[in-house]
Order: sequence, then C-alpha cells, then structure tokens
Amino acid sequence: MFVPLFVNQIIRRAEKLYYDKLAVVDGEKRYNYKEYGQRVNRLSNALLDFGIKPQEKVAILCYNTHQLLEAYYGVPQIGAVLTTINIRFSPQEISYVLNDSQARVLLFHKDFLPTIKEISPQLSVEKFIVIEGEADQKFMDYESFISLGSTKTLTDPPIKETDIAELFYTSGTTGNPKGVTLSHRGLVIHALGFLAHYHYDDSDVQLHAIPLFHVNGWGTPQFLTWVGGTHVMMRKFEPETVLSTIQTYKVTRIFLVPTMINMLLKYPKFDKYNISSLKLIIIGGAPTIPEKVKEVEERFGCRAISAYGMTETSPVMLNSLPKAHKHKREEDRLTYQSKTGLEMIGVQIRVVDPDGNDIDQDGIQVGEIICRANSVLEGYLNLPEETGKSIVDGWFHTGDMAVIDNDYYITIVDRKKDVIISGGENIASVEVENTINSCPVVLESAVIGIPDERWGEIPKAYVVLKQNANLTDEELIKYCKEKIAGYKVPRKIEFVENLPKSGTGKILKRKLRDKYWVSKEKMVQG
Amino acid sequence: MFVPLFVNQIIRRAEKLYYDKLAVVDGEKRYNYKEYGQRVNRLSNALLDFGIKPQEKVAILCYNTHQLLEAYYGVPQIGAVLTTINIRFSPQEISYVLNDSQARVLLFHKDFLPTIKEISPQLSVEKFIVIEGEADQKFMDYESFISLGSTKTLTDPPIKETDIAELFYTSGTTGNPKGVTLSHRGLVIHALGFLAHYHYDDSDVQLHAIPLFHVNGWGTPQFLTWVGGTHVMMRKFEPETVLSTIQTYKVTRIFLVPTMINMLLKYPKFDKYNISSLKLIIIGGAPTIPEKVKEVEERFGCRAISAYGMTETSPVMLNSLPKAHKHKREEDRLTYQSKTGLEMIGVQIRVVDPDGNDIDQDGIQVGEIICRANSVLEGYLNLPEETGKSIVDGWFHTGDMAVIDNDYYITIVDRKKDVIISGGENIASVEVENTINSCPVVLESAVIGIPDERWGEIPKAYVVLKQNANLTDEELIKYCKEKIAGYKVPRKIEFVENLPKSGTGKILKRKLRDKYWVSKEKMVQG
Ligand SMILES: Nc1ncnc2c1ncn2[C@@H]1O[C@H](COP(=O)(O)O)[C@@H](O)[C@H]1O
Repeated sequence: MFVPLFVNQIIRRAEKLYYDKLAVVDGEKRYNYKEYGQRVNRLSNALLDFGIKPQEKVAILCYNTHQLLEAYYGVPQIGAVLTTINIRFSPQEISYVLNDSQARVLLFHKDFLPTIKEISPQLSVEKFIVIEGEADQKFMDYESFISLGSTKTLTDPPIKETDIAELFYTSGTTGNPKGVTLSHRGLVIHALGFLAHYHYDDSDVQLHAIPLFHVNGWGTPQFLTWVGGTHVMMRKFEPETVLSTIQTYKVTRIFLVPTMINMLLKYPKFDKYNISSLKLIIIGGAPTIPEKVKEVEERFGCRAISAYGMTETSPVMLNSLPKAHKHKREEDRLTYQSKTGLEMIGVQIRVVDPDGNDIDQDGIQVGEIICRANSVLEGYLNLPEETGKSIVDGWFHTGDMAVIDNDYYITIVDRKKDVIISGGENIASVEVENTINSCPVVLESAVIGIPDERWGEIPKAYVVLKQNANLTDEELIKYCKEKIAGYKVPRKIEFVENLPKSGTGKILKRKLRDKYWVSKEKMVQG
Repeated sequence: MFVPLFVNQIIRRAEKLYYDKLAVVDGEKRYNYKEYGQRVNRLSNALLDFGIKPQEKVAILCYNTHQLLEAYYGVPQIGAVLTTINIRFSPQEISYVLNDSQARVLLFHKDFLPTIKEISPQLSVEKFIVIEGEADQKFMDYESFISLGSTKTLTDPPIKETDIAELFYTSGTTGNPKGVTLSHRGLVIHALGFLAHYHYDDSDVQLHAIPLFHVNGWGTPQFLTWVGGTHVMMRKFEPETVLSTIQTYKVTRIFLVPTMINMLLKYPKFDKYNISSLKLIIIGGAPTIPEKVKEVEERFGCRAISAYGMTETSPVMLNSLPKAHKHKREEDRLTYQSKTGLEMIGVQIRVVDPDGNDIDQDGIQVGEIICRANSVLEGYLNLPEETGKSIVDGWFHTGDMAVIDNDYYITIVDRKKDVIISGGENIASVEVENTINSCPVVLESAVIGIPDERWGEIPKAYVVLKQNANLTDEELIKYCKEKIAGYKVPRKIEFVENLPKSGTGKILKRKLRDKYWVSKEKMVQG
C-alpha cells in the first residue's frame, strides 16, 4: 500500500500517543504533545485561511522558540514550505532570502523588528507576524494570528512526498546564500535512519543548543517528535544556561559544535552542575578535535559521537559510532569516535578521485565525499545550473575532502569548496570577497580560513587596494559589517601589493592558506 | 533526491561496512558479510543467466537455512519475487502455491524431494534446485547452481520501489491459501520503523527460532542485516537446541510464539544453560498470555515484549513497549507489556466499529483493528476482489477485534475473521471445512477454534453425515491429512445431527464457540 511520506505523520503520531507527555519547554512555557499538536494545527489552519497554497513559502526569523518548533509542522503540513532564516544574517541578506524565496508570510521575533521595519519596503512579503511582540497596524502578533485558526486536524497535504517541506539558505561557494530545498520524503527517511542508529525513546530530553534554523537543528524536530521526546528550547548559547538547563530538565541528549564544547569546557563553574542525566553528545558542524573526544567524555560523563552533514543532505551523512562488535577496547572505541564516521542507514557514501573512482582505503589518499540519498536536496532554488553542478549522475558532491580506512570510516581532512566554517557557521569566501571588492577603493581580495582556537576557523582577508588608495582595517571591517552577517566579517585583514596567481590569472588561495596549516594534520578545524 | 527504496541497499551496506563480521551461522557453516553478500550475488547472477525477469517468481521450500537467507536478497535484488512456502503445507497445497504464483524456479530442501517428485508433473515450474541434496538429471543442486553466477555486484533492479519483493501464502478466510504481495518500499520502511523502536546494533545476535517462511521471520532478514547483526539459523524448534544455541552464540534477541515459550519454560533442563546474553524476547504470532510476561522475564532474565502483526502487514503493527517516561513502576511496565501494543513508527492504526468510527478508549468497547501503512500488502495475488474487500478507503482491515485504552494501547480480544491460530500457524476454518465437506459421506461441517493449553487454540470440527452414512474420527482425520497440512487437521471431531443456523441458513459458529470460551477473558488464546 502506498502511503506518502509526509512529516505531518510524525506530529500526528506524537500528538496522539504522547498527548500527556511534555513536548516543549521554552522558558516558563510548557506544552504537552496534545497542546503542541493543537497549536501546530492552529498555525496551519490560520495559514490556510490566509490563503497559503501548496509549495508557497512561509519564512521565519527567530531564535529557538516553541513558535519555531510549531512552524516546523504547521507550515509543511499544509504543503507549504518552511523557510528559516539565520538570525545572524545582515538586513541585506535577509532581504535577499525573502525575495529570492518569494515568501508570502514572514514570522519574526520581536527583537528583529528594527531590521524588518527597515527592509520591509523592499520585500515582497504580504503578511508580517511578530513573535512575542505586540501587534500594530502593520504587524500582527503570533498568538492572535494562530488563534484565528482552528485546532482541527488536517488530512495529508495535496502534494507529492517528493515535494518540498523546507527551504534553508546556506552560504555556498557563490556570492549569495543559496536556497536548499528538502523534500518530505527525504526528511522522513533521514529521521528514520537517525533513529535506527541513535536509539531514542520517549524518555529522551534534548536541549536545542544549536539553532534550529540550521537545517532543522540536524533533524531534531522530526526524529525527537517521532518518539515523543521532550524539546528544550534555548535561545542563546551561554555555558551557564546550557549547564543549568541540563541539570533542571535532566537533559539526555545535546548536539554541539566544537566551539560550543570549548566554551563549556573552559567555563569555570562547569563542575558545579549535575549533568549526569546526559547520555549522548553529538558533535557536528565542523571537524572534531580527536584529542578532545576523550576529554569530552570524561568531563561530561557520557558518550561523544561526531556526526557529519550539510544543509544539502538534511543533514546527517556520517556518524562516528564505533562498531559495537569490533571496536570494543577503549582505545579503539575512542579512535573510531574521533573519525568523521561511517555512512548512516539510508545514505550511500563514496570517496572519489577527480575521475570518479573510489580512492584507496588506506587513510592516506584523499578524495571528495559524494552522497546518494533521499535526504539530498531536490535542488538549489532558482539555480538549476548550480544544482546540475552539485548533483552529477545521481551523486551529490559535497566538496569535502577525506580519507577512508579499511573499516569504511571516513575522516575529513580538507575542503575543496571555498567555504570557511567558523563556530559552526558556514562562510562562503566568495561572498566575503564580493563584499570587500564592492568597496570603491579595493582592487581585489582573497579570503581564506585560518585556524583559531576558539572558533575553529576564522576568515582572513588579503586585500589589494587601487593605486594611491587608502583604507584602514577598521574602515574595511565597518564597511563589511553593514553588508554581511557579523561572523562573516574578516577577523584579520592584510593589505598586500598583489595576490599569488596562476598562469591563467586565477588567484592561488592555496598558497595563502598553506602556511597557516603546516603544523596541522588537516586543513580544516572545528 | 529520489533514490528508490530497494531491499538490496540493505545487503549492500552490510556487505561493505561489516565485511569481516559474522553474518550467518548455520550448523557448522559460517559466513561473514562479505561472503554472504557474494553468495547472494552469485544466486542473483545465476538467476539472471537462467533468464529470470523482473517480477517473475522464484519459490523456496526450506527450513531456516543460510540458503533461505541468501534467497531473501538474491531474488528481490534482480527485481524478481521471492515466494516462500510453508514447509508444513501438504503436497496439494504446495502445488497450489507453485501454480498460483507461476513460479519459474523452485529451490527446495532435499528433505522434500519425495513430495516434489510426486507433484512435479502437475507443476508449471521450469527449474528445480535442490538444497543440500545431490544433483540428478532433473534437479540441479544449489551450490552448483549459484557457482554458475558471478559475484559481481548488481545495480538497482529495473523496477519501481512499489513493485513486489516478496510473496507469502497465508491461510486467510477463504479456501485456498492467498498470496500476499509485499513491496520493496514497504519492507524497507517496515525495517526502519522496527529499528527505531528496538535499538539493534552490529553486536546483536538473533536466533531464528520462528520459520523465516512466515512473512520474512517478522522482518529479520531486513532489519538485522541492515545493522550488521548476526543471523543464527535454526532448522527445527527443539528446546534443547534453542537453549544450547543461545548459550553457544551468545544470542541477544529471539522471537517466539507463545507455544514455543511454553515448551521452553516446561523444559526440564532449562536452568542448565547460560542464557544471560539474551536482551530481548519478542512474543508474537498469537495473543500473549498476560500472566506469563513476568514469568518469562524472570526465567529468561531479559525483557519480554509482545508484537502483533500479520503476513499482510510485513508484519509488525503493534508493539507492547511501555512508554519509558510514564510506565516506570514495575507493575505498570508489566501491565503494558502484557497488552498487544502501541502502533509502530510508520504505521497508522485505528480500532473501529462496524460504521468505521473510532471506538471509545475505555478498554471495554470492542472494534476491528484497521491499518494504513506502506508495509501493508499491495494486494492478494490474482484475487482483486479479496483485495478490494480487505483494503477499504485506504485502510487494511485485519479482522482482529480489540479494545483500546486511554494510552492508545490496544489489546486483541477476539477475531472477526474465521481463522484459528494454533502454535503460531494460521488455519482458515473454511479451508478445513471444505476439506471435510469434500468427503463423500459428509453433508456439512463447521470448524471452530477451541482453547488448548499447549497450542493456544486447536481446530475442532462439528460434522453432519449424510443419511445412513458411517464415518469414524480416525477415518476423517486420515482423509484430511492427505489433503491439508497436519496442523490444520481437526484435533477433535464431534458428529452431530445438525448445526445451529440463522433464519437465513447461515451456520452460527458463535454458538458452537461460546461455550469453550465462557471462562476466558478473551475469545482468542496463544
Ligand atoms: N501479538 C498478537 N496477539 C494476538 N494475535 C496475534 C498476535 N500476533 C499475531 N496474531 C494473530 O495472527 C494473525 C496473523 O497471522 P499471520 O498472517 O499468519 O502472521 C493476526 O491477524 C492475529 O489474529
């Protein structure tokens, strides 16, 4: 019997079976699954009443709040597409995303009111809804909006399972953020694969430390809801809040990027909290520091596994779960947990040379990770050419360079694509370069990632000025800050006479990068 | 990205990642996943070379052997359909199944040589392959056959994911066994749902105590292979073998029907074996004995969960896993584990009255269990009418009658369909009645299930003879044994003057059944 795979089946099951179970904690607010499910339905019905049609976009600009979690089901369950926006994006970037996606509705947190007011004239958005804010003539507040909708349960949306459920903007290798479209089918199969490995149940409590606007918090809205687990929302990452929340809610699972782990480990009052409820930390978003796995397990008192993925893959592709029957010795277990990982159930992975042949499994040869899975994006929105370049012969090319051992564990050692990963956020070098180059006195520039103890990597810019021009570091940084998200602004700037170039005039970034990484085993760092 | 869900992706993953892990143990034989995967490929390639085309049937009549497990992938991975045959079927039933399915190839264990020789003239099968036997002019042996095929890995089969992978014949409510067709997509999603709940990994070792010819051993070939677990084959159920095998191979998981559990618990040398490796027993195939859950857990020293399903649903629909956050007290845990269960991830279940409305969740009202899931059959082979009667408005009607509590746990209390379940085997009353009625001196008959301590239920026949006719119990039993499987032959026969009938002449079986069940809580028993 063909029953299309839609994400709403997930919330429906939880609403029914876990009706009295705590679904969401957000500050003082608490909803059980019945209440959460009903709020989701209200949002859906209000959007339907407003006239949202299948595959139209509803955008959201918000911290990790219960409203964001509601949108995760309320929007796709009517067949519309949830478009999340990185709250650290600059006003210019936010406008770009909203117009590129042609979002008809924007839900945004009141903290972003000044930005939205500033950019609203240039937006095609028809309806603005403010979360936790007060309504005014222009902006309706979220609670009033959803109270317009009934709690009536909806039937499956009038779309195909391969239609789009979510749209995420990611800093790719091009100038502007690219819209990554993820299907219902892909998200559902991703959640099932994740559950097959990570063994969740309804006693699990997950703290949302990483922002959910990053590719659905690595799948949490789906898989955690499916088993009736509890979502604990966290709006801002602060070691104090993280630790006290773990203690208060007996959090069992948390996903962190290496920068967050470092902040926690360095936090002076770390040992004052009882975090013994923790069962698992998943480290992702950037390469793990192998030496750290042991330290993390010891300090946190639980398993630490690393997971690898991309927005384009919903996201998880690899997990560093050791083989239970084989890597039993403590030493082996830690070695394998420090690798990037083994392919997830439902995902096919290869590491290939430029001709598309599998590289040797010797841990030495380096190749590109390619992926074939339902969880791979349907395409980049409005960018068929980019899509065609990324998905070749049914395999998605990640741009991540890795070695593979004879047990099929993969370890990322470098990046082919021109992306810098800083504190878990992606930065497209090209986007930063374009911004710098738009400055009237700049001739050309090259932006590279250099190692940084706290952020893993930070962007550094090499800038060539036009003849007789003058520009200081501070001036250039200020210029960039107005145009792009703060984390993308170069932390270091070096003015140079010229950039190393190939015979054909291509800037040789490699030459600039190499000296920073000579003492490192890999050319990437978390 | 659309990647069709085919079961061969499961074996491919295991063959690659768990190449050196013990995949199958069968008596003295042992294969790791690389060897198992290669044998699977040999079988596939040999079948392709023989000329098997997509969706053609390859049948197998065999105990739980490694060859049967190989067929589970070797056949569907070329897009053909694996048709398993219950080894307890009578020669007549085996012929029926082979001809109804139009199987082109039959793999059979040498023990069934006499039967196959007897029926082969009336079969449409083109090629007979004997497992563990010696080849002769007519019958090739399995090892020679697969050695004709190369170990070359195959690409995905040229079929759709909704095409058929497996065909099982089940005793339904009609005379002949009905062919249940299960799709690749359904089997894959079933396996993922199962793994989401049962938390397997590659350290798991499963003893195949129930026959794999029963709806793929409740999904084991798929989900256990997916995580790289070890399959331990068992050809015949004997308490001694079960216990010593658990001890030898440190078996962690086993599925059993209540009759098997009773046999084990009563086995005098039960306590002589070290079975401490066991983590989980799943009891299924027939209603569990609620009082037994505790005893089972204590004696076996592990969790005992009951699962409910049907051939038509791949099979699992309900699991009696307690809610981890809620049913924490030992007492509650056992109460919920004694129920039939909660709907599995990926499966939608309702319990409805004759008008199709959900019944009250009061544990008292009784309704029929209906199911909507990808794991539901695509249809009964060659029986579109039967299919249409079973799947109504997108819901499959199980014929099992149940109550539901306010936590959504369902408990089966009766059966609507005319089926008797004896030692985990289904018996269609109608089939037995037709057999009895075909006896020249019989006027009419009615077969019902009556409670039995060992088998749960056993078939009893009420028989009306033609005028002046004579027939003894023994004669009738002998007559039946020639036509139907031994377990279907009535254990008790009562010759009566007439049968209770309704005004319209319908036999009122209920009247015959009731008196046997008055002292019982339910009208079904395992
Ligand atoms: N856990 C269970 N409790 C009660 N009945 C069961 C259970 N599992 C299976 N059955 C019965 O077995 C039938 C399926 O038989 P089969 O198709 O041969 O697997 C179901 O329709 C039920 O009547």
